[in-house]
Parts: sequence; structure tokens; C-alpha cells
Amino acid sequence: MANVDTSIPPETTGAAAGLAARHSAEHPLKLYGGWFCPFVQRAWIALVEKHIEHQYVEINPYKKEPEFLALNPRGLVPTLGLPDPPRAVLYESSVVCEYLDERYADEAVHGKRLLPGSAYERARARLWIDHVSTRVIPGFYKLLQHTEGKSALSIEETRREFLGHIRTLVKEMSSSGPFFLGETFSLVDIALAPWAKRLWLIDHYKNGGVGIPQEGHDGDDEVWGRWRAWFKAVTERPSVKETWSDDERYLAAYKRYADNTTNSLVGQATRAGSGLP
Amino acid sequence: MANVDTSIPPETTGAAAGLAARHSAEHPLKLYGGWFCPFVQRAWIALVEKHIEHQYVEINPYKKEPEFLALNPRGLVPTLGLPDPPRAVLYESSVVCEYLDERYADEAVHGKRLLPGSAYERARARLWIDHVSTRVIPGFYKLLQHTEGKSALSIEETRREFLGHIRTLVKEMSSSGPFFLGETFSLVDIALAPWAKRLWLIDHYKNGGVGIPQEGHDGDDEVWGRWRAWFKAVTERPSVKETWSDDERYLAAYKRYADNTTNSLVGQATRAGSGLP
Repeated sequence: MANVDTSIPPETTGAAAGLAARHSAEHPLKLYGGWFCPFVQRAWIALVEKHIEHQYVEINPYKKEPEFLALNPRGLVPTLGLPDPPRAVLYESSVVCEYLDERYADEAVHGKRLLPGSAYERARARLWIDHVSTRVIPGFYKLLQHTEGKSALSIEETRREFLGHIRTLVKEMSSSGPFFLGETFSLVDIALAPWAKRLWLIDHYKNGGVGIPQEGHDGDDEVWGRWRAWFKAVTERPSVKETWSDDERYLAAYKRYADNTTNSLVGQATRAGSGLP
Repeated sequence: MANVDTSIPPETTGAAAGLAARHSAEHPLKLYGGWFCPFVQRAWIALVEKHIEHQYVEINPYKKEPEFLALNPRGLVPTLGLPDPPRAVLYESSVVCEYLDERYADEAVHGKRLLPGSAYERARARLWIDHVSTRVIPGFYKLLQHTEGKSALSIEETRREFLGHIRTLVKEMSSSGPFFLGETFSLVDIALAPWAKRLWLIDHYKNGGVGIPQEGHDGDDEVWGRWRAWFKAVTERPSVKETWSDDERYLAAYKRYADNTTNSLVGQATRAGSGLP
């Protein structure tokens, strides 16, 4: 079977195209990414938040270009190409984000740190990033790829499970807000922002949609009020908007997920009922 | 079905019993653990390595004691009960280990840091801890729980996959050794040490065993020579030995894994073919 995901349009559009163009010049720090990939968006948001000089290199990881595989044999995006030591690479979005926060730590140049200063608060942030990565995100794909007669659970059960993982997270959010930790935007927000931006794809493609109660409707309560405040603040954050291509491109790219025919590693793992790769 | 895992003997034995006894007095920093749990052993090794005053509290997480659930509703071990802020808890072994390293950072009191000082080296260590947690450890359980006719792969394929993940890790180890980073024992070593200590259980219970080539035998090469040097250094490390109960207790506790009847979260996830919880 041809790997259909290689036909994803090869370029950023919309706001992300502007950002990519401003970071197209040769630079020793390189972000190799695909515009459609939410894990890439995490790293990209961190670069923008911290005003880190870099070069953005758009690649399609499904094409397995030999030049890219020579750099990172795992072939995963985001891959961060480092100036120091040269030719070294980092990958895994949460490792990349934490690296950027630690390596570019001067708050006078790079703005507020993306993880808190106290060891306990930092550990607590990592705990909830872990919750996002191991509970919320797999739940997102299970719902988006839900296929009647093939998925283990009904779509209602899948939706209930997904919303349960979001509720658990929201209950841990600072009550004052708007972000997870309060006024400070952090790696916890970045961990979830790319999927928050993609929630409407589930509304578009799946019967019943995401199912988050509308304001003032049945099932609304203070948890969903707090969620809406977080969602608004995060999706309106300039770094999140600047790393976003045109909506219709995502609609096309994610149709393969909604049809459950994607060959992405995440998509395949979700189809097999196993954890994320 | 009765949850057979609740019948695991409720106490540490051997070296771990001595360690637990020396840390049985009331102390505001508490490690809630089960002697048999390798994720607990990670946190326990970190406490010992860093000479951190604490109280060890043995619990059986399968029993879901209301008192423990009041402290940590997730009911997971290791759980770290903190003095500051009081009644706060941390869990997820890699979050707990990194917290201990950051909170008890004075090298004059607590010995060498368990993660390197440079942002890049620290990120690289986290990348390989991630490899251990998402590749090597699931492979360990797939092999230990392998059941002819039920598992998706044959035992040979399962073994080859597991050994492949170990080889990938070994190739990243410092060539001088003996530890992953070289002379310094680190969180990368701690991440894998508890399963290294349990490898003999696969040799005991599974046809063909782990399958790591013996020195001088067919299939031996420099990768396995490096592995043996690492394995010897880590399994002889005092903190690893001190957190170990009597061998025969593990033989009994892990029989449920080998029979693929355990009700542990890890065991159930492995049986279902999904990722670790």
C-alpha cells in the first residue's frame, strides 16, 4: 500500500508560512518540522515564546528522505539540530521543549522561564505534562479515529473517557488562570495547545463531536468554565497562532485520521489499540 | 475474580528489609512503596544515592487502602509524600527521581548530581531515559508475559525486539564506562537498573530466556561486552543491592507475570497489547 501520508502538501500556509519565511535563513540551530504535526508545534511554540534565533526547515517525515535520516536515524519530528555540539540532534517534543527552556535561560533575553523555579512546582508541572501525553493525547486520537464496529469502545464511551482526562487536568489548573499555572504561560500549556487547536477537527469529522458543554447548557459546570478560559487564552496566544497554517489544510491532512487510514506512527498505534510510539 | 496480586507478601526481606528498618522512623519526607515494584526501586535508589533522610512506608498498591487513596487518589507507587508543601504528593517514578535530584542539589551533602550540568547532556540523558521507559521496559514485560498462541509475536520475535531495544541503548553508552555517562552514575542507569536486576526472572520462566549472548559465545560482540560491563557495575552498585529483597520473593511475585495472570496495571496493559499505563 502506498503511504498516503506522503501526499500531505509540503509547505506551511497562513500565519505559519510568514513565521517560517522569517526563519528561513541559514542558522546553526535548526528546527526540522512538518507544519501539520502537533508535536512539532510544541517545539515551535517554545522557540517563538523564547525569541530564540533559529532556522525552520519544513520536511515530511513520512517521506524518509535519506538526508534527514542521516541526521536522525529515527526520522522523527520535531528534530532539533544543534550548533553545540555541532551535528548533534535532539528529538521527542517534551525533551526538546525542556532543553530550549534550560539552554536559553536568560530571562532578560528569552522572557519568563517556561517551567517554575521551585523543584516541587517544576515536578508538579512535569506530572501534568505526563498526564497530557499519556492520557489526554491518546484519548484525542482514539476519538478522532473512532470507527464504528472496529474500535473497542462505542463513540460515547470514547468521548466520555477523553472528557474525563480533560476534566482531571482542569481540576489541577490554577483557579485564577488563565493558564495552567496562573498568569504564567508554561510547558504544561504548550504540551496541550496543539491538540486544543485541533479539537474542532473532531467536531467536524465525528458524530457528536468533542462534546464539551457549551456555556449555559446542560452539563456545564465550573470545570468547563475554567476550561473555556484556558482554551481562549491558549488559542489566542500569539505563539500558538503564529505556528498555525490555514484551517482547511488541517481539514485535508486529518481526514486520514478521521477515516482511520493514516500511516502515521501515532495513527497506527491508535488503530492497534496500543500506546503512543 | 479475586485480585491475586493482593496476596503478595507484605514486607521487605533481605537487604531491603535492613534499609527499610533504618528508615522506619517518622519523617516528613515519605516514600510509599511496594518492595516488589521496579518503579518504586527507581525512587528508592535515588533516595539512597543522595543520602536523603526519609521514612520508607511499605504498602501494597493493589489493596487500594482508603488511607493511601486519600493521599494519592491515583493510588500509584512510588508516591512521595512531601514536607513542603505538607500533604503534597508526587508520583510517576521519573518525575520523583528528577525532583529528588533537583530538590536535594547540594553536592557537598547529597553527592554528585544524577543528571549532567549542561543543558544538552541533560536533554540527551532524558532522551535515553525515555527510550528505556517507552521501548526497553515494555519489551521486558512482553517477553516475561509471552504466552504461546496468545501473544501477537512468537517468543523469538519478542526476544529479538527486546534485545534490539537494549542494543540501541548500549550503542549510546560512553565507551569508557562503566555507566551510561561514563564514571558517573546517573538517572539513565537508575531508569533501567530495577529491570536489569529482574532479567534473571525471564531466564527462569521463559523458554530460551533473555537470550543475551554469553561472553565468547556465538553472537557476542562489542555491544554485549559493553552491556556486561554496565550490567556488572549497576547490579553491584550498593544502592541497587540495598533496595533488593530476597531473590525467591521475586520468583514468587513475578510468577503471575510469567503466567500472564497478573492484575497489575503494567501487566494488564501488556496483555492487552497497549502501552504502559
